[in-house]
Amino acid sequence: MTISEFDIIERFFKRRTAVRDDVVLGIGDDAALLRVPADRQLVVAMDTLLAGRHFPPQTSAFDIGWKALAVNLSDLAAMGADPAWATLSLTLPSADEVWLEGFAKGLFQLAERYPVELVGGDTTRGPLSVTVQLHGFVEPGKALRRNTARAGQKLFVTGTLGDAACALQALQAGDKPDPDLLLRLNRPEPRVDFGLALAGTGASVIDISDGLLADLGHVLDASQCGATLWIDQLPCSPAFQSIAGHDALTYQLYGGDDYELCFSVDADQVERLTRHAQQQQLPVTAIGVVESQTGIQCVHDDDRLYTPQGTGFDHFRDTTDG
Amino acid sequence: MTISEFDIIERFFKRRTAVRDDVVLGIGDDAALLRVPADRQLVVAMDTLLAGRHFPPQTSAFDIGWKALAVNLSDLAAMGADPAWATLSLTLPSADEVWLEGFAKGLFQLAERYPVELVGGDTTRGPLSVTVQLHGFVEPGKALRRNTARAGQKLFVTGTLGDAACALQALQAGDKPDPDLLLRLNRPEPRVDFGLALAGTGASVIDISDGLLADLGHVLDASQCGATLWIDQLPCSPAFQSIAGHDALTYQLYGGDDYELCFSVDADQVERLTRHAQQQQLPVTAIGVVESQTGIQCVHDDDRLYTPQGTGFDHFRDTTDG
Repeated sequence: MTISEFDIIERFFKRRTAVRDDVVLGIGDDAALLRVPADRQLVVAMDTLLAGRHFPPQTSAFDIGWKALAVNLSDLAAMGADPAWATLSLTLPSADEVWLEGFAKGLFQLAERYPVELVGGDTTRGPLSVTVQLHGFVEPGKALRRNTARAGQKLFVTGTLGDAACALQALQAGDKPDPDLLLRLNRPEPRVDFGLALAGTGASVIDISDGLLADLGHVLDASQCGATLWIDQLPCSPAFQSIAGHDALTYQLYGGDDYELCFSVDADQVERLTRHAQQQQLPVTAIGVVESQTGIQCVHDDDRLYTPQGTGFDHFRDTTDG
Repeated sequence: MTISEFDIIERFFKRRTAVRDDVVLGIGDDAALLRVPADRQLVVAMDTLLAGRHFPPQTSAFDIGWKALAVNLSDLAAMGADPAWATLSLTLPSADEVWLEGFAKGLFQLAERYPVELVGGDTTRGPLSVTVQLHGFVEPGKALRRNTARAGQKLFVTGTLGDAACALQALQAGDKPDPDLLLRLNRPEPRVDFGLALAGTGASVIDISDGLLADLGHVLDASQCGATLWIDQLPCSPAFQSIAGHDALTYQLYGGDDYELCFSVDADQVERLTRHAQQQQLPVTAIGVVESQTGIQCVHDDDRLYTPQGTGFDHFRDTTDG
């Protein structure tokens, strides 16, 4: 006898003890019942991960559970929001209990940090697909938007770029990726705390899921600006530096899945943000400057221009993956 | 050149004019930004529809869009909640513009009634799958739960039962279903207004998506009660009556997809609810009584017992569909 939909929810997703006191009614009724603080706005993000498209087919259940929540936490970080509740729609080819246990473990390990409570969802049978919707809070007026970049502001990026794309490339070539880079692909660290430090600064923020050029392009389009990008300043991890070779710039400009924050902010905010970044042991690197003229100009340190090829990842135009 | 993910969102899902004034920021940033009234709790439901599993493969794009929202509205109705905002995760085999136009039309036609505003989501390529998450509001203490059924309360059901299952059976047999029954399968009418009338009555409520016996079973389990079900009193539509034949009871007890509300309520609430039902031109039928002893006993009008076979629909145990 196989395990039923209700048993799956009971055994793997319903926790015995409530994690948050703002959950009036969690998993188990027609809908969840939740209390939003009176002095907060609600922030809602939703992301779907498909096997072979958003993660390699060999990805472990633990890592899929982790990543499904992480990509949504990253969206909330880019809004400057404090995460609170998740719902999960899980489509599975079969009710594999070992897989379910690993998946739940990955999801909850990340959830418990904030803490995020899983309050509902849906479980169906079909090709593996995971949709998480995440709710968080932000003080009115403090949410971070894409459309507030202004000419003269410096551009920054958290962490390092290109790691996840470099690991994915190794996997796709049938090679064994460097373990540090693979961890960046499979267990991205959403920059929630730094997003909270950015909240209220008026910074223009996006999280890098589809590649730096593509995502920075969204910020600049929304803000009706352009940028000069200092491509020799893009931050690299030690593992990336020793492995990426002549493809380094391609990974850093086009590679998705890093889930770092890219932002532009007024000069008078930089010192305070730098302090926050140091406290969080998170490198933050200046990578360029916002310009009034539209378009992204990539320049080397010696002012030579670099011409980027192609665009970022688009789920409907790109046909080379999954 | 095929249409991009961003074009899909811009062309089919982003509306030029805001529908609601509580949406601070809708589609187009990392997340939506929303205002929950200070004197309301948030109600959140999420349902996924897969082609061939939750709707027949030949279902029109319009009907899929309608149904994806309707099943979530039905969950909110069962909580007594007032619907507000939706998010949509849409996985599509290809960016078919005719299909997308039909889908959006069906979704928005139902959404505009309440009105519900689409505030965000995700679009990816893969096997057809639609996840909608719906948010609504309810006054604190007035949400309808499954666990409040008490022995002695009468059981009621809105509308008619078995229509959708009867239409599905015809489709699966390769026959042409009756158009009234097919409409019930493809464009369920969520009982939102009646749910709002039930809010605050303490009624124990569930919406019937997996079949009367299965869903009533959830209410009774949660309430630690049983029920006597008057199977000759189950309400039928005229089309159903003339078509269902000797399978009628099977459709009515096990057939899902009717999205009617099943509820039990104290006797002193019945008159007011009956008045509401009449105003809404919605039939509400007494179909049994809650008992202190667990289990569901099905009886004919002449008190003969009827023994139901099998259980309701479960997405992981059932292997005969899709």
